[in-house]
Amino acid sequence: MTERLDAQFAFLREADKLKSILRASCLIDGSRHENSAEHSWHIMLYALVLSEQAAPGVDINRVLKMLLIHDIVEIDAGDAPIHGNVDHAAMAAKEAAAADRLFRLLPSDQAESFRALWGEFEAAESPDAIHAKSIDRLQTPIANLVTGGGSWKDYDVTLEQLEARVGVPVKRGLPKVWAWLLPKLQTFFAARERG
Amino acid sequence: MTERLDAQFAFLREADKLKSILRASCLIDGSRHENSAEHSWHIMLYALVLSEQAAPGVDINRVLKMLLIHDIVEIDAGDAPIHGNVDHAAMAAKEAAAADRLFRLLPSDQAESFRALWGEFEAAESPDAIHAKSIDRLQTPIANLVTGGGSWKDYDVTLEQLEARVGVPVKRGLPKVWAWLLPKLQTFFAARERG
Repeated sequence: MTERLDAQFAFLREADKLKSILRASCLIDGSRHENSAEHSWHIMLYALVLSEQAAPGVDINRVLKMLLIHDIVEIDAGDAPIHGNVDHAAMAAKEAAAADRLFRLLPSDQAESFRALWGEFEAAESPDAIHAKSIDRLQTPIANLVTGGGSWKDYDVTLEQLEARVGVPVKRGLPKVWAWLLPKLQTFFAARERG
Repeated sequence: MTERLDAQFAFLREADKLKSILRASCLIDGSRHENSAEHSWHIMLYALVLSEQAAPGVDINRVLKMLLIHDIVEIDAGDAPIHGNVDHAAMAAKEAAAADRLFRLLPSDQAESFRALWGEFEAAESPDAIHAKSIDRLQTPIANLVTGGGSWKDYDVTLEQLEARVGVPVKRGLPKVWAWLLPKLQTFFAARERG
C-alpha cells in the first residue's frame, strides 16, 4: 500500500515538469509562450464543450483521459512544433522511450494502462483517438486567428500547409467545426496576402 | 449551428485567461509561481492516478469534469490562497458572479449544466464533490514537501493550520492518502521547529 502510493506520487511529482515544456504557440493575450500542461487543460475543456460534435461511438470520458496524459512524453522528448521541420521517425522513437520511462514510474498495472492509452492516441486509429487528435489540433488555429497569426508567422505557414497539417485531422474528427473554421482561415490568409 | 459554435468558442477563448491567474504555490523546480490552468491539469492527473482511492459511489468521470472547470471563476475572482486571510463570504459572492458571467458565454443548456457542476463542487456535499475537493487540496502539500516548505513559508503556516485547512478535506475524501502524508508532514514541521 505505502509502496504503491510512493510510486504514484513519484509519477505525479515528475509530471510537474510538463509545466516547463514550452510550445510554439502563445497565450491569446500574447504575453508568453504556452506550456504543455496548461495546453492539456485547455484542450480537455475544448473536448468537454464540443462533446456533442463527437462521432457516434466516441467515449468522451476516454477522450478526456487521453488528452490528460497525451503530452507527458514531452517531459523527456520536448514539443515538436506542428509546422516545424521534424524528423518524425526519430521523434516517434524518442517519445516511445519517454513513455516507457515516465509511465513506468507508476505501479505496473497503471504503467501498462497509461502506456496503452497513450499508444492508442498516437496511433490515431480508434474512434476515441481520432476525436482526441482533432481536438488537439484545434486550439492553436483558434488562438492564432485571435492574435493576428501567432505561431503561423514564426513558421511562415501557408493556408495550404494548414489545410494539410491541421485541416485533415480536424476534419476527420470534427467535420462541422472545420466547416465553421475554414472560411475564417480563408479570410485571414487572403487579407494577409493582400496586406 | 453557427451561433452555437460562436458561443462555444467565445467561452473557450475567454478560458485562456486562466493561464495568467497565479497561485500562491510554486512549481516543484522553484522557477516560478504556478497558474490555475496548469494546476487544474495536474490535479486531474492526481484524480486519475488515485482513482482507486475514491469512496464507493464516486464517479471519477464526473470528478474529472468538476476539476476541469472548478477554477474558471478565478478569471474574474482571482485565486484565494488557502492560508491567506480571506473574507470567505465576499469571495463566495465574487465567485458566484464570476460563474454567472463566464458560464453564460456558453449556449444556455451548457451554461446551466456547467454552472450546476461548479455549484456542486463548491458545496462539497455530494460524494463526487467531496472527492474532488480532497484531490484539489492535495497537490500543494506534495509540492511544498519537495521544495522545502514552498508557500507554507510565505504564509507562516503551522502543522495545526495545515491539519485544519488541508487535513480535514483530504481525510474526508482520501483517508488512506492522508495517513500516508501525515507522518511526512510531521517530520517536516518537527525538523523546521528544531531549525
